[in-house]
Amino acid sequence: MLVHEIEELRKIRKEWCGEKVGLVPTMGALHQGHLSLIKKAKEMCDRVVVSVFVNPIQFGPAEDYGKYPRTLEKDMELCNSAGVDLVFAPSPEVMYGKGQKLSNDTLTYVCPPFFYVNKLCGKSRVGHFDGVCTVVLKLFNIVQPDFGFFGEKDAQQAVIIKKMVKDLNVPVEIIECPIVREEGGLALSSRNKYLSEEGKKEALVLSKILNNIKACYNKGITDIDALKETAYGFLSKEHELEYLEILDRDTLDEKDKADDNSRAFIACRVEGVRLIDNICLGGK
Amino acid sequence: MLVHEIEELRKIRKEWCGEKVGLVPTMGALHQGHLSLIKKAKEMCDRVVVSVFVNPIQFGPAEDYGKYPRTLEKDMELCNSAGVDLVFAPSPEVMYGKGQKLSNDTLTYVCPPFFYVNKLCGKSRVGHFDGVCTVVLKLFNIVQPDFGFFGEKDAQQAVIIKKMVKDLNVPVEIIECPIVREEGGLALSSRNKYLSEEGKKEALVLSKILNNIKACYNKGITDIDALKETAYGFLSKEHELEYLEILDRDTLDEKDKADDNSRAFIACRVEGVRLIDNICLGGK
Repeated sequence: MLVHEIEELRKIRKEWCGEKVGLVPTMGALHQGHLSLIKKAKEMCDRVVVSVFVNPIQFGPAEDYGKYPRTLEKDMELCNSAGVDLVFAPSPEVMYGKGQKLSNDTLTYVCPPFFYVNKLCGKSRVGHFDGVCTVVLKLFNIVQPDFGFFGEKDAQQAVIIKKMVKDLNVPVEIIECPIVREEGGLALSSRNKYLSEEGKKEALVLSKILNNIKACYNKGITDIDALKETAYGFLSKEHELEYLEILDRDTLDEKDKADDNSRAFIACRVEGVRLIDNICLGGK
Repeated sequence: MLVHEIEELRKIRKEWCGEKVGLVPTMGALHQGHLSLIKKAKEMCDRVVVSVFVNPIQFGPAEDYGKYPRTLEKDMELCNSAGVDLVFAPSPEVMYGKGQKLSNDTLTYVCPPFFYVNKLCGKSRVGHFDGVCTVVLKLFNIVQPDFGFFGEKDAQQAVIIKKMVKDLNVPVEIIECPIVREEGGLALSSRNKYLSEEGKKEALVLSKILNNIKACYNKGITDIDALKETAYGFLSKEHELEYLEILDRDTLDEKDKADDNSRAFIACRVEGVRLIDNICLGGK
């Protein structure tokens, strides 16, 4: 079922009173990564809602809001095959109000803590996580799910959303699901569509660097600079590295030494496309 | 019933499934103004929750957080007599977490729009409405009421909270209740306790100025500067005027001329105590 309006969704939601409801918030252009979230939601919930909304307030002025892939018809097919109960695909006008200017002069924002935001993707994408938290809280308030499902690929986002839920006592449990990868190791992303065949090969550098860091850690290297330096052998002029960091996976704090609670995060441009990936150093 | 812990409250709230729940958020030191909110809530709801929480993050460093009156025992008596079902009185540690530093470096905040905040009380109380919105959203998420009751005395607060509810799709309806006054006209406020008998007399200047502005408006004066100038005859050296503004009552926008949708707002210090009041120019 496809729903575009908030009031219609609220009406249906009321009929589900007493059932466990899961929300998978997406920007559409669904791929196997999203489907793994939907599958997990189906396992845990009586009802599964997928939201499809390319959220204008989480894109910077120089970013790809306009050209971000919009494939609602195909998304609906995937959701129907996956047994999704309801796809919520509102317009920006429905989400933010007609004629509403989208700035913090005129709109209430949810602002995650500076210490969580001022690193990794937040450093280059100023205001991005304010936009993410604001829209996720709006979706939580509209759908009122018991569980919200998020992918570990956007690991900083998942940490920040869990922090928001804790800080604001949001009555939603956040479930994180592992990264889904292509056979070669490339983490699935809607932005992979921007890459040529050649670019996709070059993009393997992200997972190669992360796997190598983990292998080195498993061999006993815990010095963070030493682990980071292992990356440079993989990089060529095709790769524009934005960041490579090893941080605490729960707090995003810097550490003296890598440990099992550390996560390595990378962002790198290939053919001008900004790609991100990460890996936990602990575990298998 | 007095509850201090969030989990205990959530458990009781679940038992009220299907009932209409009203929340009256307060900082305690309850007076007839609060009781009028409780009365309205009793009329509209099956269950009434009063929260009593002096919220540290809405006080500036030079403000009266430490000395703000705390009278929980008396508040409980009043709530019991008024038929309140539950008083929620958490500690700061319960609300914000043990050892949690209270700053936007480390805590998720709800930030109302700059255009709503950068005037009236928000101009001198920097960060105040971020703190108010954050705690109100937390209380809404904890209590999950159908209705939230707020007094018109804090008119800017009520406008900002209604804006937050709209912008963030919070599933709570905001009910505003009229100002309750002493016989002489002084608007009830927990901060009136700081005043001497003499100060209370001097404090009548706020309602006198507002009533006079309304009388002048009713006589046909709509020029805003002219209306504001009528105040100065009332002021003496006992009164430290912080602001006197006539703005749109819904948007807090400035107007060319006063009209029935205008509200006059005043803040004035008497004996060092900051008092506020307001009046709608439309209506009786």
